[in-house]
Amino acid sequence: MKILVLHGSSREEGNTEQLTNLALQGIPHTSIRLREKEIRPIHDQRHDADGFAPVADDYDEVIEAVMAHDFIIFSTPIYWYGMSGYMKNFVDRWSQSLRDKRYSFKESMGQKRAYVITTGGDQPRLKGLPLIQQFQYVLSFVGTTYDGYLIGEGNKPGDILGDKRAIEDAKLLNEWLKSQQ
Amino acid sequence: MKILVLHGSSREEGNTEQLTNLALQGIPHTSIRLREKEIRPIHDQRHDADGFAPVADDYDEVIEAVMAHDFIIFSTPIYWYGMSGYMKNFVDRWSQSLRDKRYSFKESMGQKRAYVITTGGDQPRLKGLPLIQQFQYVLSFVGTTYDGYLIGEGNKPGDILGDKRAIEDAKLLNEWLKSQQ
Amino acid sequence: MKILVLHGSSREEGNTEQLTNLALQGIPHTSIRLREKEIRPIHDQRHDADGFAPVADDYDEVIEAVMAHDFIIFSTPIYWYGMSGYMKNFVDRWSQSLRDKRYSFKESMGQKRAYVITTGGDQPRLKGLPLIQQFQYVLSFVGTTYDGYLIGEGNKPGDILGDKRAIEDAKLLNEWLKSQQ
Amino acid sequence: MKILVLHGSSREEGNTEQLTNLALQGIPHTSIRLREKEIRPIHDQRHDADGFAPVADDYDEVIEAVMAHDFIIFSTPIYWYGMSGYMKNFVDRWSQSLRDKRYSFKESMGQKRAYVITTGGDQPRLKGLPLIQQFQYVLSFVGTTYDGYLIGEGNKPGDILGDKRAIEDAKLLNEWLKSQQ
Repeated sequence: MKILVLHGSSREEGNTEQLTNLALQGIPHTSIRLREKEIRPIHDQRHDADGFAPVADDYDEVIEAVMAHDFIIFSTPIYWYGMSGYMKNFVDRWSQSLRDKRYSFKESMGQKRAYVITTGGDQPRLKGLPLIQQFQYVLSFVGTTYDGYLIGEGNKPGDILGDKRAIEDAKLLNEWLKSQQ
Repeated sequence: MKILVLHGSSREEGNTEQLTNLALQGIPHTSIRLREKEIRPIHDQRHDADGFAPVADDYDEVIEAVMAHDFIIFSTPIYWYGMSGYMKNFVDRWSQSLRDKRYSFKESMGQKRAYVITTGGDQPRLKGLPLIQQFQYVLSFVGTTYDGYLIGEGNKPGDILGDKRAIEDAKLLNEWLKSQQ
Repeated sequence: MKILVLHGSSREEGNTEQLTNLALQGIPHTSIRLREKEIRPIHDQRHDADGFAPVADDYDEVIEAVMAHDFIIFSTPIYWYGMSGYMKNFVDRWSQSLRDKRYSFKESMGQKRAYVITTGGDQPRLKGLPLIQQFQYVLSFVGTTYDGYLIGEGNKPGDILGDKRAIEDAKLLNEWLKSQQ
Repeated sequence: MKILVLHGSSREEGNTEQLTNLALQGIPHTSIRLREKEIRPIHDQRHDADGFAPVADDYDEVIEAVMAHDFIIFSTPIYWYGMSGYMKNFVDRWSQSLRDKRYSFKESMGQKRAYVITTGGDQPRLKGLPLIQQFQYVLSFVGTTYDGYLIGEGNKPGDILGDKRAIEDAKLLNEWLKSQQ
């Protein structure tokens, strides 16, 4: 099972990345930091006569990495009770891939599995739930299996290490991912 | 009551804009299309020694418009069961304004009211609910009164005119906005 | 299209019933007030050797009415941010019907359509959303088409008449139901 | 800290009770099985001239137990994507206690803390979220601190022991409860 982690955080060594790294300790995987890529917000041309015009940015490179893996981990901090703008810009562009003749996007996504890892500072296990539900609809739309999610609490860098439950959940996820290899 | 509309759509004359325009017919307001602005995703520097570095883009101009109005309408299509990346990039940057000494951001936002107008193609009145709930947390965090929301159904340009309920809701919103002037 | 209304309210002439009656004005339908029936909470015997024991109450009568209609309107006030206990007791008992050899419960429900009408006093259009989402899962589990929902605001008897939007929505629902006859 | 567990399950030795018992191992607490009490659905008389008429059932006994404890654990299986009818009937009756002169209900509840433990068979960590959100509104209305929730997966009796994550979460909750004594 080839694992890809998409990091949506905007800072180095944030809590979400730390938690995700714990979950992946000792597990081979590819890792992409969306903040290091240039991905433009979508220009919705679904209904234009010529469809979507190509965009000269890094989106293709990232979506090709998605296509080439079996298990996608969406690792995003909770920014304003949703996924980060970096990640949202990326997901919005899927509308383009849905119509891209180079892929059978939905068919490919339908064979993949996914997991969401997120952290936040303001009651994330309650106020992060709209984000969890949004991913439910997103993944269901493309047919990807939603294997679960992990929510941690943290604000300042390193806080996450004090969230015992998140740490424990990350360990169990680590074991489970190893068992799926 | 000074009204500002923030349009999050990425295309001209989309259903969300049409519905919003109906709701605002005959009502003086300022209108900003986020797609015509350059707003970078946030770089989270909350915990950096020097705090946020200034960003040379159009964010300041837009947030100053927000500061200068009393009633903010967030008009965004449902993209992948959430607000558009354009709008998310904008809202994410509020973290910067919260620490910006030029404003008392939270205090100002706490005196404003807001409304959400959104449309989508895939059962928006059900699958748009995480977006509605996300705005509930966003607005509650800054203390803005959440006066309500309006959800319409549409996919192809113009579809919205066939959604009688959305049209009726927009008319009532129009009357109500006029009564608040 | 044979319409059944299940009233979950516990009082006479409550706002939810009033709103529902508006939506059904001039439309033939059957109406059941759950408060006038004795329906015991479920005793979960799914995993008992002999399965569910028959219960001597009015459940059978009500579920047979459901079986005999095509369009079910769940009309419940928002009690503590969920459907009323009367309605919950009734829905819980579906677990029994799922295993009842007299019906092909899921198959029958899969051919029906449903609508939810609800009112509440504390920001019902926001805080009633978990109830709307719960019905989404409930109806989806049995395959019933979820045609929509209508939320009104009201506390004291008669309040609902002051909620213009709910009244307008009820009128549109009335027209739509007539068009489906 | 005096702990009260309210069991909402309708069967002996169900998964929810098992999980709750794990979380409480070695911790003194009071335990009430709502299925062993007779609690009538509410009759909404908030707006009657004479207010609520007394009801001759076991509600008073249970709500007095709530009043006498500091930490309330709502332990309910997910029945049809919500709390069980037993528990809903009980919570609905709080409307009566809010107006009961024997208690300062809201004031008392405002000094308590609460936790939700739930299990279900159909993707409970996703489809149980409306239940989690409903409790958020319920507890917030009466001012009770919502210390968290624990969701387990199980269908047949004993299934829960196979849900490693729930077991681990229950152990952490156990440690935490002990630390709060």
